[in-house]
Amino acid sequence: MKFRRSERLVDMTHYLMNHPRELVSLTWFAERYQSAKSSISEDLVIINDIFKHQGIGVLQTIPGAAGGVKFYPMVKEDQAEAIINKLCSLIADPERLLPGEYLFMTDLLGNPKMMNEVGKLLAAAVADREIDVIMTVSTKGIPIAQAVANQLNVPFVIVRRDPKVTEGPTVTINYVSGSSKRIQTMVLSKRSLKEGARVLIVDDFMKAGGTVNGMINLLEEFNASVAGIAVLVESEHVEERLVDDYISLVKLTDVNMKEKKINVVTGNYFSKKINFL
Amino acid sequence: MKFRRSERLVDMTHYLMNHPRELVSLTWFAERYQSAKSSISEDLVIINDIFKHQGIGVLQTIPGAAGGVKFYPMVKEDQAEAIINKLCSLIADPERLLPGEYLFMTDLLGNPKMMNEVGKLLAAAVADREIDVIMTVSTKGIPIAQAVANQLNVPFVIVRRDPKVTEGPTVTINYVSGSSKRIQTMVLSKRSLKEGARVLIVDDFMKAGGTVNGMINLLEEFNASVAGIAVLVESEHVEERLVDDYISLVKLTDVNMKEKKINVVTGNYFSKKINFL
Repeated sequence: MKFRRSERLVDMTHYLMNHPRELVSLTWFAERYQSAKSSISEDLVIINDIFKHQGIGVLQTIPGAAGGVKFYPMVKEDQAEAIINKLCSLIADPERLLPGEYLFMTDLLGNPKMMNEVGKLLAAAVADREIDVIMTVSTKGIPIAQAVANQLNVPFVIVRRDPKVTEGPTVTINYVSGSSKRIQTMVLSKRSLKEGARVLIVDDFMKAGGTVNGMINLLEEFNASVAGIAVLVESEHVEERLVDDYISLVKLTDVNMKEKKINVVTGNYFSKKINFL
Repeated sequence: MKFRRSERLVDMTHYLMNHPRELVSLTWFAERYQSAKSSISEDLVIINDIFKHQGIGVLQTIPGAAGGVKFYPMVKEDQAEAIINKLCSLIADPERLLPGEYLFMTDLLGNPKMMNEVGKLLAAAVADREIDVIMTVSTKGIPIAQAVANQLNVPFVIVRRDPKVTEGPTVTINYVSGSSKRIQTMVLSKRSLKEGARVLIVDDFMKAGGTVNGMINLLEEFNASVAGIAVLVESEHVEERLVDDYISLVKLTDVNMKEKKINVVTGNYFSKKINFL
């Protein structure tokens, strides 16, 4: 079947959205739609314009025989602000307060649309970095890792607290939790990470950074490197932060159990050099 | 800004893909694009035709003042076959064999594109059911739960093996694991499920079905009901299956540690009444 322009635009939009950061050759599109490459090029100009205008992303065209087009998901600054403001007001809900000044956040992490937005923001913040794999720790980091991995089109690996028979040989490290100062254990399947992998560490919550630091130590055992650290929520008022260079969407500035008040502000997101649309 | 048809088609495709199974009013689209509702209707016909042709899904139009359009992700039967065949050949790789005849599957679960495809297939199989929430058990079920939740546009909840302070009050049950006959524990945050919720249970692997059965028991404690059970891989040669009505993509028929052989076939997927495109 020969596709008309309107049909190509719909299918190409769908295809590009499902293959972010992946090189698609114009020849491949031309054959898929039985259309001339010049028509495909014109289609891509239309898509790129509207993707930029609507805050969806940009298409990068790589010329030459081995060339093609790559879709990079991006956001506009005001979209990012709106999403982070929404997160802040959701997290500030006093109903979230749990004994020990912990916050209930499972509902946010189990909301796929919210996770897609979080994934989009965090991916945009590391868009210019070389990232081979996302790493997180079980359980609550997983939805964020999957969402970011989806946007960056790279795999994600899950660090566990205990070894499992289904993981095969594992590497285990001990680390000191930042806030409770307890010795804890982290385990990662040996097959999960290749030597030299550039790894983006993500998690739902960071207090002193002990867990993130543990993951950094674990990476060393794999001769892998840290390509970045990104968290949904960071907590202020930490005596000694173990991790310096990280991205956060939301910052918890005060939790008052007695007055049932949670104060949250925007994290350090906008202080990072991010290419907004 | 007034949008031209080509621009509307790109943006509407993006919007609908990000809002599956959600009613979008034509008025809302008309205002978004400063276009007549009749033009929007024509756009939707074009999108629906190409969505059906390419195996993306269908648009359902609901007439009347409270009406609008809903995008239902669907697949073609041959797409489903191709995905399941790919899964089978990946899972049959003898390198996956672990002591105790366990299979290493973490790489598949950490592949976001693969998870999107799995999510699409499982969601298609339950497309006509009323589902309020997806439930799975930590850790390996989570990527599948998130992928299905994404397609169905519903939240997902994670059952744990141990209670955590960050979950608030929890409901705990004990159950007997199907294969090892050991007593095990399952915990779910009380806030996670509303009374009467219709729940789709998903998991990565089902042997005798003890874990799935545990989740069914847990649902009873919440006065919630089972809307379906879907697993990535089921294992044959089980003396007594605790669960009857489930959907599986892949079936493990034989694992031979000595000969380093894994035999897998298509699960019961195509024996279910699924509306393919």
